[in-house]
Amino acid sequence: MKHSTTEIGIVQTQFATVADELVLESGEKLGPVTLAYETYGELNAGKSNAVLICHALSGDAHVAGYHKGENKPGWWDDMVGHGKAFDTDKYYVICSNVLGGCKGSTGPGSVNPKTGQPYGLHFPLITIGDMVKAQQLLIKQLGIDKLCSVAGGSMGGMQALEWLRSAPDKLESAILIATAAMHSPQQIAFNEVGRQAIMADHYWHDGNYYEGRSPAKGLAVARMVGHITYMSETSMLDKFGRQQKNEKQPFKFTADFEVEGYLQNKGDSFVKRFDANSYLYITKAMDFFDLTEEKPLHEIFKGLDAKLLVIAFRSDWLYPVWQSQQIVKACKIAGLNATYCEIDSTYGHDAFLLEIEQEAHLVSHFLKRVSNGYDVTGEYAI
Amino acid sequence: MKHSTTEIGIVQTQFATVADELVLESGEKLGPVTLAYETYGELNAGKSNAVLICHALSGDAHVAGYHKGENKPGWWDDMVGHGKAFDTDKYYVICSNVLGGCKGSTGPGSVNPKTGQPYGLHFPLITIGDMVKAQQLLIKQLGIDKLCSVAGGSMGGMQALEWLRSAPDKLESAILIATAAMHSPQQIAFNEVGRQAIMADHYWHDGNYYEGRSPAKGLAVARMVGHITYMSETSMLDKFGRQQKNEKQPFKFTADFEVEGYLQNKGDSFVKRFDANSYLYITKAMDFFDLTEEKPLHEIFKGLDAKLLVIAFRSDWLYPVWQSQQIVKACKIAGLNATYCEIDSTYGHDAFLLEIEQEAHLVSHFLKRVSNGYDVTGEYAI
Repeated sequence: MKHSTTEIGIVQTQFATVADELVLESGEKLGPVTLAYETYGELNAGKSNAVLICHALSGDAHVAGYHKGENKPGWWDDMVGHGKAFDTDKYYVICSNVLGGCKGSTGPGSVNPKTGQPYGLHFPLITIGDMVKAQQLLIKQLGIDKLCSVAGGSMGGMQALEWLRSAPDKLESAILIATAAMHSPQQIAFNEVGRQAIMADHYWHDGNYYEGRSPAKGLAVARMVGHITYMSETSMLDKFGRQQKNEKQPFKFTADFEVEGYLQNKGDSFVKRFDANSYLYITKAMDFFDLTEEKPLHEIFKGLDAKLLVIAFRSDWLYPVWQSQQIVKACKIAGLNATYCEIDSTYGHDAFLLEIEQEAHLVSHFLKRVSNGYDVTGEYAI
Repeated sequence: MKHSTTEIGIVQTQFATVADELVLESGEKLGPVTLAYETYGELNAGKSNAVLICHALSGDAHVAGYHKGENKPGWWDDMVGHGKAFDTDKYYVICSNVLGGCKGSTGPGSVNPKTGQPYGLHFPLITIGDMVKAQQLLIKQLGIDKLCSVAGGSMGGMQALEWLRSAPDKLESAILIATAAMHSPQQIAFNEVGRQAIMADHYWHDGNYYEGRSPAKGLAVARMVGHITYMSETSMLDKFGRQQKNEKQPFKFTADFEVEGYLQNKGDSFVKRFDANSYLYITKAMDFFDLTEEKPLHEIFKGLDAKLLVIAFRSDWLYPVWQSQQIVKACKIAGLNATYCEIDSTYGHDAFLLEIEQEAHLVSHFLKRVSNGYDVTGEYAI
């Protein structure tokens, strides 16, 4: 374990049964519902310093610090800790694994109490709204009435948007990074390819694979597609070019180029930590998410008190800047207090995990102003 | 069969054994080598009006007209025929299925004369150079010493570039559409995902599937990925938006959105006409193609007599305009006679099959000038 004393150190995932039975958006009932979560820092006496971080498709509750015996910190450790953007000396940071996930929260791999077997495809379809509903129950259990902020990138940003829509009086602000108010057909298409790759796997067995071999090859292909969309053409050129791997193998369709090896490694390591059925359920929730389903974006934002920070990355072609601009435009029409920043990164969608310096500056400045009750309106490009 | 008398009408694929044994770039020997090809129009007395059209990854020799009993014309029928861009009243048009293909030319699905069984993975790795070498033998067999033009989009353009490199005295001109002098890591990455999807299929059996079930699901996933890259974000928005399919099915991970149904249909129809092993071999040939392997592009073009027409499409993100501009820039440095046109289409890479009107205008004008011996230099955006 390599971590300095300025970092969070060892953390432990906790578990909360947030509902004996949750009525889902579909009308179906699911229960009991457990959420895995982690917290960092201390809740202040006024209970006004809680920040909820929502994770993206493949994330989990372990956003920062180290699990005992592990060398790898949480997925956004650069952003969360003493003196960092989400400063745990000031804020009480909470992160929970989404409903439908596979890292401790109730999902398709959980045991169905009615059968004693894993749910598999008997797990009901869930929505981003359902994920947020479960989070709201958790936040209430933690004794918090109003969050200082809900923050997230990618699918995390969708959850933050859903908080704004469904419980606007429960948050002071939202930080939306590289996200969208709804998926475009291209985003749906990439998710669908991932799903088809999983379901094409011989070992998927209609989702009943928990006692045998898992659909690892299909899930690896899904992850490979994902990783292409997380990078940019430029970042791939910078990182790999046409560099070939040194070892020549007798097999004709081995990884000849560095980029192939990279994708294969990403696929292979993903299958060790993620459940294929969760991939199906979560991507479907993302695809069905449409904040404008009932009314236009600017009407949802109308009259809200919350302050918004919206960050997009110029080379992000999976969640292109126009999707963030669409959100900001609706804020302007609604008169909602919003800051928009476009960061000139080459990292593509991955930038939200990599462009730490600029992101940290924006987030810490924004949170400070939110805590102090200042206006945040402004627009700048970096 | 619905086709007017102004069209080519019924055509038949022909077959030529172009070599008893072909020495490949790798040094391996392959034989006999058969190419499937079609011709349209008449070779003139001076044998100076022959145009070779090279197909893309999933194409074949059937570029125009109808096969007996079929309703669907060849893959570029809009461009080839009486009075069309490749005017069969003026030009003798030839198109052959590539070496490694599955539509009549020798490929991994062909019978290995040494074993009496399909080659499968015993088929040697082939290159774009090998494909072109086989084409050159075919052209010679047809009694043609010098082609008026070699034309192609995507991988077809790579073959035209390879003609320029390996046999510059054998062609008067080349038409390069939506192509590249080498694949970028992003292009390699998308091909690799397709290959991994095929090889992940339980029925692939290391390429030995010709007597049983084929790896149809894997090949369908590969094709789905392909189709996303052939369209643009805009064309997907225009064509599908977030339109949902009407029929609600009990299965949770059915195609809910139009775009999902479209991709699934494309995948399903592709597996009926294409061989998974050919997909592996041809994509590998594309990825390894690098015109600049021995010397810079402008040195390859130096001193060449051929005239070039280079066409790119602004929304094509699979073969982005910078790759065409790179070719044109090298032409300028080398003093090679080249016209560059950027068409402002929203169709993405598919534009080369869809933007017929503008493409036809450019091609017919170019071929006329080539036939008349005029200069063609110029640059315009449409």
